[in-house]
Amino acid sequence: MTEGIPIQDRFPPEYAHCFVCGPANPYGFQLASRWDGTAAVATFVPPQWFTGADPDTIPGGLTAALLDCHTAAAGAAAAAQRLGLGPQDRLPRVATARLEVDFRAPTPIRTDLTLRAVVVESEGRKTWVTGELSASGRVTAQAKALIITPKH
Amino acid sequence: MTEGIPIQDRFPPEYAHCFVCGPANPYGFQLASRWDGTAAVATFVPPQWFTGADPDTIPGGLTAALLDCHTAAAGAAAAAQRLGLGPQDRLPRVATARLEVDFRAPTPIRTDLTLRAVVVESEGRKTWVTGELSASGRVTAQAKALIITPKH
Repeated sequence: MTEGIPIQDRFPPEYAHCFVCGPANPYGFQLASRWDGTAAVATFVPPQWFTGADPDTIPGGLTAALLDCHTAAAGAAAAAQRLGLGPQDRLPRVATARLEVDFRAPTPIRTDLTLRAVVVESEGRKTWVTGELSASGRVTAQAKALIITPKH
Repeated sequence: MTEGIPIQDRFPPEYAHCFVCGPANPYGFQLASRWDGTAAVATFVPPQWFTGADPDTIPGGLTAALLDCHTAAAGAAAAAQRLGLGPQDRLPRVATARLEVDFRAPTPIRTDLTLRAVVVESEGRKTWVTGELSASGRVTAQAKALIITPKH
């Protein structure tokens, strides 16, 4: 599911600067995560300058950063759905309180990568989201994130 | 403790490309972590393009990436010390298997940041390292990492 408005385009305007997922930050990944009602999916090819210790991979820490922004996007989209917001409405602000990442294999660069995230639990302002990053169908990193919707 | 040879300069030469900590990657943080025998410390100012959702901060995911490379550096330096290697010797290769990050507060940009990491446990090829990122004495993120020294 890669159609529809990216979740990042529905965040408050200042979020567009985010290095990892902001559409207005030319130095970053410009992650475009899309929500299909049950999962958030993003596909992209990492630019060459994001090399890891092995030049054919991206750093594990950047896979954590990608999983951080993508799980937060999923949490925001799911929170909006619970609030009855429409697909064009601005999303609520969110913040990640905790992120756990298991690195399963090196993540290749210059290759299509896929991020997928689903909500596993929600309670009040807290949403727990699991996410995974894969390359050619092989999962390279898995994450669990606690996403908070701050009080306004 | 910010003197001596950076841990990143003692890694195998290809590690110098790492976006987060490689001294030869001009797009990244070029993290320089130094080991004093018990802790690894790094101080740096994040470049402007690393903005987060709030333009006065860096993204939580990038704080995770910084903690990932810095705890790995600490794990490698500690492993070298256990192996009896000298401060000029090449470090063993390391890989992070798991990273847990608790985000305590926004991490400001255009400010001196400090990373600190210590080894809390080691067993065979596994080393557990805790790390924290702080700005002006305030801890903004804390991490625990499992670092593996792969078989050669």
